[in-house]
Amino acid sequence: MGQDSTTMTKRHHDGEAATQRRAIGVFDSGVGGLTVVRALRRELPGEDIVYLGDTARVPYGSKSPRTVEKYSLGCQRFLLDRHVKLVLIACNTASANALPALREASPVSVIGAVEPGAANAILATSTKHIGVIGTLGTVRSGAYEKAIHSRDASVNVTALACPLLVPLAEEGWIDDQIAILVARRYLTQLFKQDPDIDTLVLGCTHYPLLRDVLHRVAKDIAGREVAVVDSANAMARAAAAELGIGPNRRKDSGRLDCFATDTSRLDELAPRFLGEPLTGFELVDL
Amino acid sequence: MGQDSTTMTKRHHDGEAATQRRAIGVFDSGVGGLTVVRALRRELPGEDIVYLGDTARVPYGSKSPRTVEKYSLGCQRFLLDRHVKLVLIACNTASANALPALREASPVSVIGAVEPGAANAILATSTKHIGVIGTLGTVRSGAYEKAIHSRDASVNVTALACPLLVPLAEEGWIDDQIAILVARRYLTQLFKQDPDIDTLVLGCTHYPLLRDVLHRVAKDIAGREVAVVDSANAMARAAAAELGIGPNRRKDSGRLDCFATDTSRLDELAPRFLGEPLTGFELVDL
Repeated sequence: MGQDSTTMTKRHHDGEAATQRRAIGVFDSGVGGLTVVRALRRELPGEDIVYLGDTARVPYGSKSPRTVEKYSLGCQRFLLDRHVKLVLIACNTASANALPALREASPVSVIGAVEPGAANAILATSTKHIGVIGTLGTVRSGAYEKAIHSRDASVNVTALACPLLVPLAEEGWIDDQIAILVARRYLTQLFKQDPDIDTLVLGCTHYPLLRDVLHRVAKDIAGREVAVVDSANAMARAAAAELGIGPNRRKDSGRLDCFATDTSRLDELAPRFLGEPLTGFELVDL
Repeated sequence: MGQDSTTMTKRHHDGEAATQRRAIGVFDSGVGGLTVVRALRRELPGEDIVYLGDTARVPYGSKSPRTVEKYSLGCQRFLLDRHVKLVLIACNTASANALPALREASPVSVIGAVEPGAANAILATSTKHIGVIGTLGTVRSGAYEKAIHSRDASVNVTALACPLLVPLAEEGWIDDQIAILVARRYLTQLFKQDPDIDTLVLGCTHYPLLRDVLHRVAKDIAGREVAVVDSANAMARAAAAELGIGPNRRKDSGRLDCFATDTSRLDELAPRFLGEPLTGFELVDL
Protein backbone atom coordinates (compact mmCIF):
# COMPACT_ATOMS: atom_id res chain seq x y z
CA MET A 1 0.00 0.00 0.00
CA GLY A 2 2.98 2.26 0.55
CA GLN A 3 3.65 2.47 -3.16
CA ASP A 4 0.04 3.30 -3.98
CA SER A 5 0.02 6.09 -1.42
CA THR A 6 3.19 7.53 -2.81
CA THR A 7 1.83 7.47 -6.33
CA MET A 8 -1.41 9.06 -5.26
CA THR A 9 0.40 11.76 -3.33
CA LYS A 10 2.60 12.56 -6.27
CA ARG A 11 -0.27 12.51 -8.71
CA HIS A 12 -2.43 14.85 -6.71
CA HIS A 13 0.27 17.04 -5.19
CA ASP A 14 -1.62 16.42 -2.00
CA GLY A 15 0.37 15.43 1.04
CA GLU A 16 -2.76 14.61 3.02
CA ALA A 17 -3.89 11.75 0.76
CA ALA A 18 -1.46 9.26 2.25
CA THR A 19 -2.65 9.81 5.79
CA GLN A 20 -6.41 10.05 5.15
CA ARG A 21 -8.75 7.08 5.47
CA ARG A 22 -9.13 6.10 1.85
CA ALA A 23 -12.28 4.71 0.26
CA ILE A 24 -12.98 1.87 -2.16
CA GLY A 25 -14.07 3.25 -5.55
CA VAL A 26 -16.82 1.55 -7.55
CA PHE A 27 -18.22 2.57 -10.94
CA ASP A 28 -20.88 1.32 -13.32
CA SER A 29 -22.65 2.67 -16.39
CA GLY A 30 -25.79 2.96 -14.27
CA VAL A 31 -27.41 1.77 -11.05
CA GLY A 32 -26.86 -1.99 -11.35
CA GLY A 33 -23.41 -1.60 -9.77
CA LEU A 34 -25.10 -0.70 -6.49
CA THR A 35 -25.57 -4.46 -5.99
CA VAL A 36 -21.76 -4.58 -5.74
CA VAL A 37 -21.85 -1.76 -3.16
CA ARG A 38 -24.49 -3.73 -1.25
CA ALA A 39 -22.25 -6.82 -1.23
CA LEU A 40 -19.23 -4.70 -0.20
CA ARG A 41 -21.12 -3.18 2.72
CA ARG A 42 -22.09 -6.66 3.90
CA GLU A 43 -18.58 -8.09 3.43
CA LEU A 44 -16.60 -5.04 4.62
CA PRO A 45 -19.02 -2.88 6.62
CA GLY A 46 -16.31 -0.58 8.00
CA GLU A 47 -15.01 0.52 4.59
CA ASP A 48 -15.80 3.89 3.04
CA ILE A 49 -17.11 3.65 -0.51
CA VAL A 50 -17.31 6.15 -3.38
CA TYR A 51 -19.77 5.11 -6.10
CA LEU A 52 -20.11 6.63 -9.56
CA GLY A 53 -22.97 5.72 -11.93
CA ASP A 54 -22.48 7.07 -15.45
CA THR A 55 -26.27 7.29 -15.83
CA ALA A 56 -26.13 10.00 -18.52
CA ARG A 57 -24.42 7.57 -20.91
CA VAL A 58 -26.04 4.27 -19.87
CA PRO A 59 -26.11 1.66 -21.44
CA TYR A 60 -22.50 0.96 -22.37
CA GLY A 61 -23.57 -2.36 -23.96
CA SER A 62 -24.59 -0.77 -27.26
CA LYS A 63 -21.46 1.36 -27.65
CA SER A 64 -18.21 0.62 -29.47
CA PRO A 65 -15.28 -0.81 -27.45
CA ARG A 66 -13.32 2.41 -28.02
CA THR A 67 -16.12 4.57 -26.62
CA VAL A 68 -16.61 2.22 -23.66
CA GLU A 69 -12.88 2.44 -22.91
CA LYS A 70 -12.94 6.23 -23.09
CA TYR A 71 -15.98 6.55 -20.81
CA SER A 72 -14.57 3.96 -18.37
CA LEU A 73 -11.27 5.82 -18.11
CA GLY A 74 -13.21 9.00 -17.31
CA CYS A 75 -15.13 7.22 -14.55
CA GLN A 76 -11.93 5.78 -13.07
CA ARG A 77 -10.21 9.20 -13.21
CA PHE A 78 -13.11 10.63 -11.19
CA LEU A 79 -12.61 7.93 -8.52
CA LEU A 80 -8.80 8.27 -8.48
CA ASP A 81 -9.19 12.02 -7.99
CA ARG A 82 -11.02 11.09 -4.78
CA HIS A 83 -7.94 9.11 -3.60
CA VAL A 84 -9.58 5.67 -3.63
CA LYS A 85 -7.35 2.76 -2.61
CA LEU A 86 -8.98 0.23 -4.96
CA VAL A 87 -11.20 0.42 -8.07
CA LEU A 88 -14.07 -2.01 -8.74
CA ILE A 89 -15.56 -2.04 -12.25
CA ALA A 90 -19.15 -3.01 -11.42
CA CYS A 91 -20.10 -3.24 -15.09
CA ASN A 92 -19.60 -6.28 -17.28
CA THR A 93 -19.33 -4.30 -20.52
CA ALA A 94 -16.66 -1.99 -19.12
CA SER A 95 -14.79 -4.99 -17.69
CA ALA A 96 -14.91 -6.86 -20.98
CA ASN A 97 -13.74 -3.89 -23.06
CA ALA A 98 -11.61 -1.66 -20.85
CA LEU A 99 -9.92 -3.69 -18.09
CA PRO A 100 -6.36 -3.56 -19.56
CA ALA A 101 -6.56 0.19 -20.21
CA LEU A 102 -8.02 0.84 -16.75
CA ARG A 103 -5.29 -1.21 -15.04
CA GLU A 104 -2.60 0.59 -17.01
CA ALA A 105 -4.00 4.00 -16.05
CA SER A 106 -4.44 3.24 -12.34
CA PRO A 107 -1.84 3.46 -9.57
CA VAL A 108 -4.11 1.27 -7.40
CA SER A 109 -5.46 -2.23 -8.05
CA VAL A 110 -8.46 -2.63 -10.37
CA ILE A 111 -10.95 -5.50 -9.99
CA GLY A 112 -13.20 -6.32 -12.95
CA ALA A 113 -16.70 -7.84 -12.90
CA VAL A 114 -15.94 -11.02 -14.85
CA GLU A 115 -12.83 -12.61 -13.27
CA PRO A 116 -14.14 -13.06 -9.68
CA GLY A 117 -17.40 -14.67 -10.87
CA ALA A 118 -15.53 -16.95 -13.28
CA ALA A 119 -13.12 -18.06 -10.52
CA ASN A 120 -15.96 -18.73 -8.06
CA ALA A 121 -17.91 -20.71 -10.66
CA ILE A 122 -14.96 -23.04 -11.22
CA LEU A 123 -14.73 -23.59 -7.44
CA ALA A 124 -18.47 -24.30 -7.26
CA THR A 125 -18.97 -26.77 -10.12
CA SER A 126 -18.75 -30.54 -9.66
CA THR A 127 -19.98 -31.53 -13.12
CA LYS A 128 -17.68 -28.99 -14.83
CA HIS A 129 -20.73 -27.66 -16.66
CA ILE A 130 -21.31 -23.95 -16.00
CA GLY A 131 -24.19 -21.81 -17.25
CA VAL A 132 -23.81 -18.04 -17.64
CA ILE A 133 -26.67 -15.59 -18.06
CA GLY A 134 -26.14 -11.92 -18.93
CA THR A 135 -27.02 -9.12 -21.31
CA LEU A 136 -26.72 -9.59 -25.05
CA GLY A 137 -23.48 -7.56 -25.07
CA THR A 138 -21.84 -9.61 -22.32
CA VAL A 139 -22.87 -12.94 -23.83
CA ARG A 140 -21.72 -11.82 -27.28
CA SER A 141 -18.31 -10.75 -25.92
CA GLY A 142 -17.59 -14.28 -24.68
CA ALA A 143 -15.86 -12.72 -21.67
CA TYR A 144 -16.97 -15.40 -19.17
CA GLU A 145 -16.03 -18.29 -21.49
CA LYS A 146 -12.57 -16.76 -21.94
CA ALA A 147 -12.09 -16.13 -18.20
CA ILE A 148 -13.28 -19.64 -17.26
CA HIS A 149 -11.28 -21.40 -19.98
CA SER A 150 -8.10 -19.48 -19.12
CA ARG A 151 -8.34 -21.17 -15.70
CA ASP A 152 -9.69 -24.58 -16.76
CA ALA A 153 -10.06 -25.41 -20.44
CA SER A 154 -11.98 -28.62 -19.68
CA VAL A 155 -15.06 -26.81 -18.32
CA ASN A 156 -18.19 -26.63 -20.51
CA VAL A 157 -19.64 -23.12 -20.60
CA THR A 158 -23.09 -22.34 -21.99
CA ALA A 159 -24.09 -18.68 -22.09
CA LEU A 160 -27.53 -17.25 -22.71
CA ALA A 161 -28.62 -13.63 -23.18
CA CYS A 162 -31.70 -12.74 -21.12
CA PRO A 163 -32.84 -9.29 -22.32
CA LEU A 164 -35.94 -9.15 -20.11
CA LEU A 165 -34.09 -9.51 -16.81
CA VAL A 166 -32.67 -5.97 -16.64
CA PRO A 167 -36.04 -4.23 -17.10
CA LEU A 168 -37.62 -6.76 -14.69
CA ALA A 169 -35.04 -5.84 -12.02
CA GLU A 170 -35.44 -2.11 -12.70
CA GLU A 171 -39.24 -2.34 -12.46
CA GLY A 172 -38.84 -4.19 -9.15
CA TRP A 173 -40.86 -7.13 -10.47
CA ILE A 174 -38.47 -9.56 -8.81
CA ASP A 175 -40.50 -12.20 -7.05
CA ASP A 176 -43.90 -12.50 -8.67
CA GLN A 177 -45.64 -14.53 -11.35
CA ILE A 178 -44.04 -12.60 -14.23
CA ALA A 179 -40.50 -12.98 -12.80
CA ILE A 180 -41.06 -16.72 -12.29
CA LEU A 181 -42.40 -17.25 -15.83
CA VAL A 182 -39.58 -15.24 -17.44
CA ALA A 183 -36.93 -17.06 -15.37
CA ARG A 184 -38.52 -20.39 -16.31
CA ARG A 185 -38.55 -19.55 -20.02
CA TYR A 186 -34.88 -18.51 -20.10
CA LEU A 187 -33.54 -21.23 -17.81
CA THR A 188 -35.46 -23.92 -19.69
CA GLN A 189 -33.60 -22.79 -22.84
CA LEU A 190 -30.28 -22.85 -20.96
CA PHE A 191 -30.73 -26.34 -19.46
CA LYS A 192 -32.01 -27.66 -22.79
CA GLN A 193 -28.64 -26.64 -24.28
CA ASP A 194 -26.74 -28.33 -21.45
CA PRO A 195 -28.67 -30.49 -18.93
CA ASP A 196 -25.48 -31.10 -16.88
CA ILE A 197 -25.13 -27.50 -15.65
CA ASP A 198 -24.76 -27.45 -11.86
CA THR A 199 -23.54 -23.83 -11.49
CA LEU A 200 -25.24 -20.69 -12.74
CA VAL A 201 -23.29 -17.42 -13.01
CA LEU A 202 -25.30 -14.20 -12.75
CA GLY A 203 -23.22 -12.29 -15.31
CA CYS A 204 -24.89 -8.91 -14.90
CA THR A 205 -24.89 -6.58 -11.92
CA HIS A 206 -28.67 -6.19 -12.20
CA TYR A 207 -29.34 -9.89 -11.65
CA PRO A 208 -28.64 -10.26 -7.90
CA LEU A 209 -32.11 -8.73 -7.38
CA LEU A 210 -33.53 -11.79 -9.14
CA ARG A 211 -31.23 -14.24 -7.38
CA ASP A 212 -33.92 -16.01 -5.34
CA VAL A 213 -36.30 -16.61 -8.20
CA LEU A 214 -33.48 -17.69 -10.55
CA HIS A 215 -32.15 -20.12 -7.92
CA ARG A 216 -35.56 -21.64 -7.20
CA VAL A 217 -36.47 -22.04 -10.87
CA ALA A 218 -33.03 -23.44 -11.82
CA LYS A 219 -33.28 -26.09 -9.06
CA ASP A 220 -36.77 -26.96 -10.18
CA ILE A 221 -35.77 -27.40 -13.84
CA ALA A 222 -32.53 -29.28 -13.05
CA GLY A 223 -34.21 -31.51 -10.46
CA ARG A 224 -31.23 -31.03 -8.13
CA GLU A 225 -29.30 -28.25 -6.36
CA VAL A 226 -27.76 -25.59 -8.63
CA ALA A 227 -25.10 -23.27 -7.22
CA VAL A 228 -25.74 -19.63 -8.04
CA VAL A 229 -22.61 -17.50 -8.38
CA ASP A 230 -23.47 -13.87 -7.86
CA SER A 231 -20.70 -11.75 -9.37
CA ALA A 232 -21.46 -8.89 -6.95
CA ASN A 233 -20.62 -11.13 -3.96
CA ALA A 234 -17.60 -12.52 -5.80
CA MET A 235 -16.29 -8.98 -6.41
CA ALA A 236 -16.76 -8.02 -2.76
CA ARG A 237 -14.77 -11.07 -1.64
CA ALA A 238 -12.05 -10.30 -4.20
CA ALA A 239 -11.88 -6.75 -2.79
CA ALA A 240 -11.47 -8.10 0.77
CA ALA A 241 -8.70 -10.44 -0.39
CA GLU A 242 -6.95 -7.66 -2.34
CA LEU A 243 -6.98 -5.36 0.68
CA GLY A 244 -5.97 -8.19 3.01
CA ILE A 245 -8.95 -7.49 5.24
CA GLY A 246 -10.87 -10.27 6.99
CA PRO A 247 -14.66 -9.91 6.98
CA ASN A 248 -16.04 -7.41 9.50
CA ARG A 249 -12.59 -6.34 10.64
CA ARG A 250 -13.64 -2.74 11.23
CA LYS A 251 -16.73 -2.44 13.39
CA ASP A 252 -17.68 1.16 12.68
CA SER A 253 -19.99 1.84 9.75
CA GLY A 254 -18.33 3.19 6.62
CA ARG A 255 -19.39 6.24 4.62
CA LEU A 256 -21.08 5.84 1.26
CA ASP A 257 -20.80 8.74 -1.20
CA CYS A 258 -22.75 8.34 -4.44
CA PHE A 259 -22.28 10.32 -7.64
CA ALA A 260 -24.11 10.13 -10.97
CA THR A 261 -23.89 11.89 -14.32
CA ASP A 262 -27.71 12.09 -14.64
CA THR A 263 -30.14 11.87 -11.75
CA SER A 264 -33.42 10.99 -13.47
CA ARG A 265 -35.19 7.94 -11.97
CA LEU A 266 -32.36 7.46 -9.39
CA ASP A 267 -34.55 8.05 -6.33
CA GLU A 268 -36.79 5.22 -7.48
CA LEU A 269 -34.12 2.78 -8.68
CA ALA A 270 -31.13 3.23 -6.40
CA PRO A 271 -32.58 1.94 -3.08
CA ARG A 272 -33.89 -1.13 -4.93
CA PHE A 273 -30.35 -2.12 -5.99
CA LEU A 274 -28.57 -0.90 -2.87
CA GLY A 275 -31.01 -2.59 -0.49
CA GLU A 276 -30.99 0.36 1.92
CA PRO A 277 -32.20 3.96 1.88
CA LEU A 278 -29.87 6.39 0.16
CA THR A 279 -28.91 9.86 1.33
CA GLY A 280 -28.84 11.06 -2.27
CA PHE A 281 -26.68 11.24 -5.36
CA GLU A 282 -24.47 14.16 -6.19
CA LEU A 283 -24.69 15.17 -9.85
CA VAL A 284 -21.34 15.37 -11.64
CA ASP A 285 -20.34 16.26 -15.17
CA LEU A 286 -17.56 14.05 -16.57
CA MET B 1 -42.57 17.68 -56.77
CA GLY B 2 -40.95 19.86 -59.40
CA GLN B 3 -39.18 21.92 -56.79
CA ASP B 4 -37.99 18.88 -54.86
CA SER B 5 -36.61 17.32 -58.01
CA THR B 6 -34.76 20.47 -58.91
CA THR B 7 -33.25 20.71 -55.47
CA MET B 8 -32.21 17.08 -55.54
CA THR B 9 -30.71 17.41 -58.98
CA LYS B 10 -28.72 20.43 -57.97
CA ARG B 11 -27.63 18.87 -54.69
CA HIS B 12 -26.38 15.68 -56.27
CA HIS B 13 -25.16 17.03 -59.62
CA ASP B 14 -27.17 14.15 -61.01
CA GLY B 15 -29.49 14.89 -63.87
CA GLU B 16 -31.04 11.43 -63.70
CA ALA B 17 -32.55 11.89 -60.22
CA ALA B 18 -35.55 13.83 -61.49
CA THR B 19 -36.59 11.20 -64.00
CA GLN B 20 -35.95 8.07 -61.91
CA ARG B 21 -38.68 6.35 -59.92
CA ARG B 22 -37.95 7.70 -56.47
CA ALA B 23 -38.36 5.77 -53.23
CA ILE B 24 -39.78 6.64 -49.81
CA GLY B 25 -36.98 6.85 -47.23
CA VAL B 26 -37.47 5.50 -43.69
CA PHE B 27 -34.99 5.51 -40.83
CA ASP B 28 -34.91 4.35 -37.22
CA SER B 29 -32.25 3.84 -34.58
CA GLY B 30 -32.81 0.10 -34.96
CA VAL B 31 -35.24 -2.51 -36.26
CA GLY B 32 -38.48 -1.23 -34.69
CA GLY B 33 -39.00 1.10 -37.65
CA LEU B 34 -39.60 -1.95 -39.86
CA THR B 35 -43.17 -1.95 -38.46
CA VAL B 36 -43.54 1.37 -40.33
CA VAL B 37 -42.18 -0.26 -43.51
CA ARG B 38 -44.69 -3.09 -43.01
CA ALA B 39 -47.55 -0.57 -42.73
CA LEU B 40 -46.25 1.34 -45.79
CA ARG B 41 -46.13 -1.83 -47.89
CA ARG B 42 -49.73 -2.59 -46.92
CA GLU B 43 -50.94 0.98 -47.53
CA LEU B 44 -48.84 1.74 -50.63
CA PRO B 45 -47.72 -1.61 -52.05
CA GLY B 46 -46.39 -0.18 -55.29
CA GLU B 47 -43.93 2.23 -53.67
CA ASP B 48 -40.19 1.60 -53.49
CA ILE B 49 -38.75 1.96 -49.99
CA VAL B 50 -35.22 2.55 -48.68
CA TYR B 51 -34.82 1.67 -45.00
CA LEU B 52 -31.89 2.56 -42.76
CA GLY B 53 -31.52 1.17 -39.24
CA ASP B 54 -28.75 2.85 -37.24
CA THR B 55 -28.22 -0.40 -35.32
CA ALA B 56 -24.60 0.40 -34.39
CA ARG B 57 -25.77 3.33 -32.27
CA VAL B 58 -29.12 2.01 -30.97
CA PRO B 59 -30.72 3.03 -28.62
CA TYR B 60 -31.07 6.77 -29.22
CA GLY B 61 -33.26 7.05 -26.10
CA SER B 62 -30.34 7.24 -23.69
CA LYS B 63 -28.39 9.85 -25.69
CA SER B 64 -28.37 13.63 -25.40
CA PRO B 65 -30.68 15.64 -27.72
CA ARG B 66 -27.63 17.09 -29.50
CA THR B 67 -26.23 13.63 -30.25
CA VAL B 68 -29.63 12.35 -31.39
CA GLU B 69 -29.93 15.33 -33.74
CA LYS B 70 -26.46 14.71 -35.17
CA TYR B 71 -27.08 10.99 -35.73
CA SER B 72 -30.54 11.65 -37.20
CA LEU B 73 -29.14 14.19 -39.67
CA GLY B 74 -26.59 11.57 -40.75
CA CYS B 75 -29.34 9.01 -41.32
CA GLN B 76 -31.42 11.48 -43.32
CA ARG B 77 -28.38 12.50 -45.41
CA PHE B 78 -27.90 8.82 -46.32
CA LEU B 79 -31.53 8.61 -47.50
CA LEU B 80 -31.41 11.92 -49.40
CA ASP B 81 -28.26 10.74 -51.18
CA ARG B 82 -30.46 7.92 -52.49
CA HIS B 83 -32.89 10.50 -53.98
CA VAL B 84 -35.87 9.65 -51.78
CA LYS B 85 -39.03 11.71 -52.36
CA LEU B 86 -40.16 11.65 -48.72
CA VAL B 87 -38.50 10.94 -45.35
CA LEU B 88 -40.24 9.06 -42.50
CA ILE B 89 -38.62 9.21 -39.05
CA ALA B 90 -39.70 5.84 -37.69
CA CYS B 91 -38.21 6.57 -34.25
CA ASN B 92 -39.96 8.44 -31.47
CA THR B 93 -36.74 9.71 -29.88
CA ALA B 94 -35.44 11.12 -33.18
CA SER B 95 -38.84 12.69 -33.89
CA ALA B 96 -39.02 14.28 -30.44
CA ASN B 97 -35.48 15.69 -30.59
CA ALA B 98 -34.57 16.29 -34.22
CA LEU B 99 -37.70 16.97 -36.31
CA PRO B 100 -37.09 20.74 -36.81
CA ALA B 101 -33.42 20.21 -37.77
CA LEU B 102 -34.34 17.35 -40.12
CA ARG B 103 -37.06 19.43 -41.82
CA GLU B 104 -34.68 22.34 -42.24
CA ALA B 105 -32.01 20.11 -43.80
CA SER B 106 -34.34 18.29 -46.19
CA PRO B 107 -35.51 19.41 -49.65
CA VAL B 108 -38.34 16.83 -49.43
CA SER B 109 -41.11 16.50 -46.82
CA VAL B 110 -40.30 14.86 -43.49
CA ILE B 111 -42.92 12.96 -41.46
CA GLY B 112 -42.23 12.33 -37.76
CA ALA B 113 -43.45 9.45 -35.58
CA VAL B 114 -45.44 11.46 -33.06
CA GLU B 115 -47.70 13.83 -35.02
CA PRO B 116 -49.66 11.25 -37.08
CA GLY B 117 -50.43 9.11 -34.01
CA ALA B 118 -51.46 12.16 -31.99
CA ALA B 119 -53.79 13.36 -34.77
CA ASN B 120 -55.38 9.91 -35.15
CA ALA B 121 -55.88 9.58 -31.39
CA ILE B 122 -57.84 12.84 -31.30
CA LEU B 123 -60.06 11.57 -34.14
CA ALA B 124 -60.60 8.27 -32.31
CA THR B 125 -61.49 9.42 -28.80
CA SER B 126 -65.07 10.08 -27.68
CA THR B 127 -64.34 10.59 -23.97
CA LYS B 128 -61.42 12.94 -24.73
CA HIS B 129 -59.26 10.75 -22.48
CA ILE B 130 -56.23 9.33 -24.28
CA GLY B 131 -53.63 6.92 -22.91
CA VAL B 132 -50.11 6.79 -24.36
CA ILE B 133 -47.60 4.01 -23.77
CA GLY B 134 -43.96 4.22 -24.87
CA THR B 135 -40.37 3.96 -23.78
CA LEU B 136 -39.11 5.88 -20.75
CA GLY B 137 -37.43 8.43 -23.05
CA THR B 138 -40.57 9.08 -25.10
CA VAL B 139 -42.82 9.36 -22.04
CA ARG B 140 -40.32 11.65 -20.30
CA SER B 141 -40.12 13.93 -23.37
CA GLY B 142 -43.86 14.65 -23.19
CA ALA B 143 -43.90 14.66 -27.00
CA TYR B 144 -47.36 13.08 -27.34
CA GLU B 145 -48.93 15.38 -24.72
CA LYS B 146 -47.51 18.41 -26.57
CA ALA B 147 -48.65 17.16 -30.00
CA ILE B 148 -52.16 16.29 -28.72
CA HIS B 149 -52.59 19.52 -26.73
CA SER B 150 -51.40 21.68 -29.63
CA ARG B 151 -54.42 20.30 -31.51
CA ASP B 152 -56.94 20.13 -28.66
CA ALA B 153 -56.00 21.49 -25.23
CA SER B 154 -59.13 19.98 -23.62
CA VAL B 155 -58.00 16.36 -24.07
CA ASN B 156 -56.72 14.47 -21.01
CA VAL B 157 -53.49 12.62 -21.77
CA THR B 158 -52.03 9.97 -19.45
CA ALA B 159 -48.68 8.52 -20.46
CA LEU B 160 -46.97 5.45 -19.01
CA ALA B 161 -43.47 4.08 -19.68
CA CYS B 162 -43.49 0.32 -20.29
CA PRO B 163 -39.80 -0.78 -20.28
CA LEU B 164 -40.56 -4.50 -20.68
CA LEU B 165 -42.44 -4.16 -23.97
CA VAL B 166 -39.41 -3.56 -26.23
CA PRO B 167 -37.51 -6.69 -25.08
CA LEU B 168 -40.78 -8.67 -25.21
CA ALA B 169 -41.28 -7.63 -28.86
CA GLU B 170 -37.63 -8.35 -29.71
CA GLU B 171 -37.78 -11.79 -28.09
CA GLY B 172 -40.93 -12.50 -30.10
CA TRP B 173 -42.89 -13.26 -26.92
CA ILE B 174 -45.89 -11.43 -28.28
CA ASP B 175 -48.96 -13.53 -27.65
CA ASP B 176 -48.34 -15.82 -24.73
CA GLN B 177 -48.88 -15.91 -20.98
CA ILE B 178 -45.93 -13.60 -20.23
CA ALA B 179 -47.06 -10.99 -22.79
CA ILE B 180 -50.59 -11.06 -21.37
CA LEU B 181 -49.42 -10.69 -17.76
CA VAL B 182 -47.02 -7.83 -18.60
CA ALA B 183 -49.69 -6.04 -20.66
CA ARG B 184 -52.17 -6.49 -17.82
CA ARG B 185 -49.76 -5.11 -15.21
CA TYR B 186 -48.95 -1.97 -17.23
CA LEU B 187 -52.46 -1.26 -18.51
CA THR B 188 -53.93 -1.75 -15.03
CA GLN B 189 -51.59 1.05 -13.86
CA LEU B 190 -52.62 3.22 -16.80
CA PHE B 191 -56.40 2.79 -16.32
CA LYS B 192 -56.02 3.27 -12.56
CA GLN B 193 -54.58 6.72 -13.33
CA ASP B 194 -57.45 7.52 -15.71
CA PRO B 195 -60.43 5.12 -15.93
CA ASP B 196 -62.04 7.19 -18.73
CA ILE B 197 -59.39 6.38 -21.35
CA ASP B 198 -61.06 5.11 -24.53
CA THR B 199 -58.06 5.43 -26.89
CA LEU B 200 -54.62 3.91 -26.47
CA VAL B 201 -51.66 5.21 -28.50
CA LEU B 202 -48.82 2.77 -29.16
CA GLY B 203 -46.06 5.37 -28.88
CA CYS B 204 -43.14 3.14 -29.86
CA THR B 205 -42.41 1.53 -33.20
CA HIS B 206 -41.79 -1.82 -31.44
CA TYR B 207 -45.30 -2.03 -30.02
CA PRO B 208 -47.34 -2.91 -33.14
CA LEU B 209 -46.07 -6.48 -32.63
CA LEU B 210 -47.94 -6.50 -29.32
CA ARG B 211 -51.02 -4.76 -30.71
CA ASP B 212 -53.40 -7.73 -30.37
CA VAL B 213 -52.54 -8.56 -26.78
CA LEU B 214 -52.58 -4.87 -25.75
CA HIS B 215 -55.98 -4.36 -27.40
CA ARG B 216 -57.52 -7.45 -25.79
CA VAL B 217 -56.19 -6.67 -22.33
CA ALA B 218 -57.14 -2.96 -22.53
CA LYS B 219 -60.74 -3.88 -23.48
CA ASP B 220 -60.87 -6.38 -20.66
CA ILE B 221 -59.65 -3.88 -18.04
CA ALA B 222 -61.83 -1.01 -19.33
CA GLY B 223 -64.92 -3.21 -19.68
CA ARG B 224 -65.65 -1.61 -23.08
CA GLU B 225 -64.06 -1.09 -26.51
CA VAL B 226 -60.73 0.76 -26.51
CA ALA B 227 -59.41 2.16 -29.80
CA VAL B 228 -55.76 1.31 -30.39
CA VAL B 229 -53.85 3.89 -32.44
CA ASP B 230 -50.82 2.30 -33.99
CA SER B 231 -48.35 5.04 -34.93
CA ALA B 232 -46.86 2.88 -37.70
CA ASN B 233 -50.24 2.76 -39.49
CA ALA B 234 -50.79 6.44 -38.81
CA MET B 235 -47.41 7.28 -40.41
CA ALA B 236 -48.17 5.17 -43.48
CA ARG B 237 -51.48 6.99 -43.97
CA ALA B 238 -49.75 10.35 -43.51
CA ALA B 239 -47.23 9.32 -46.19
CA ALA B 240 -50.04 8.43 -48.62
CA ALA B 241 -51.73 11.77 -47.96
CA GLU B 242 -48.46 13.69 -48.38
CA LEU B 243 -47.77 12.01 -51.72
CA GLY B 244 -51.39 12.40 -52.82
CA ILE B 245 -51.63 8.69 -53.52
CA GLY B 246 -54.81 6.69 -52.86
CA PRO B 247 -54.34 3.26 -51.32
CA ASN B 248 -53.18 0.56 -53.74
CA ARG B 249 -52.89 2.99 -56.64
CA ARG B 250 -49.92 1.21 -58.14
CA LYS B 251 -50.46 -2.50 -58.58
CA ASP B 252 -46.88 -3.64 -59.12
CA SER B 253 -44.86 -4.59 -56.06
CA GLY B 254 -42.30 -2.02 -54.89
CA ARG B 255 -38.65 -2.66 -54.11
CA LEU B 256 -37.43 -2.70 -50.52
CA ASP B 257 -33.75 -1.90 -49.93
CA CYS B 258 -32.55 -2.23 -46.34
CA PHE B 259 -29.38 -0.79 -44.85
CA ALA B 260 -27.97 -1.00 -41.33
CA THR B 261 -24.91 0.29 -39.51
CA ASP B 262 -24.42 -3.01 -37.61
CA THR B 263 -25.82 -6.34 -38.72
CA SER B 264 -25.68 -8.40 -35.52
CA ARG B 265 -28.99 -10.09 -34.62
CA LEU B 266 -30.70 -8.58 -37.72
CA ASP B 267 -31.47 -11.92 -39.40
CA GLU B 268 -33.38 -12.96 -36.30
CA LEU B 269 -35.12 -9.66 -35.53
CA ALA B 270 -35.88 -8.02 -38.87
CA PRO B 271 -38.44 -10.49 -40.29
CA ARG B 272 -40.31 -10.38 -36.96
CA PHE B 273 -40.87 -6.61 -37.29
CA LEU B 274 -41.25 -6.51 -41.08
CA GLY B 275 -43.71 -9.41 -41.15
CA GLU B 276 -42.17 -10.89 -44.30
CA PRO B 277 -38.89 -12.57 -45.23
CA LEU B 278 -36.05 -10.18 -45.93
CA THR B 279 -33.50 -10.41 -48.72
CA GLY B 280 -30.83 -9.01 -46.41
CA PHE B 281 -29.38 -5.83 -45.04
CA GLU B 282 -26.50 -4.01 -46.62
CA LEU B 283 -23.95 -2.84 -44.05
CA VAL B 284 -23.12 0.87 -44.25
CA ASP B 285 -20.79 3.11 -42.29
CA LEU B 286 -22.25 6.53 -41.49
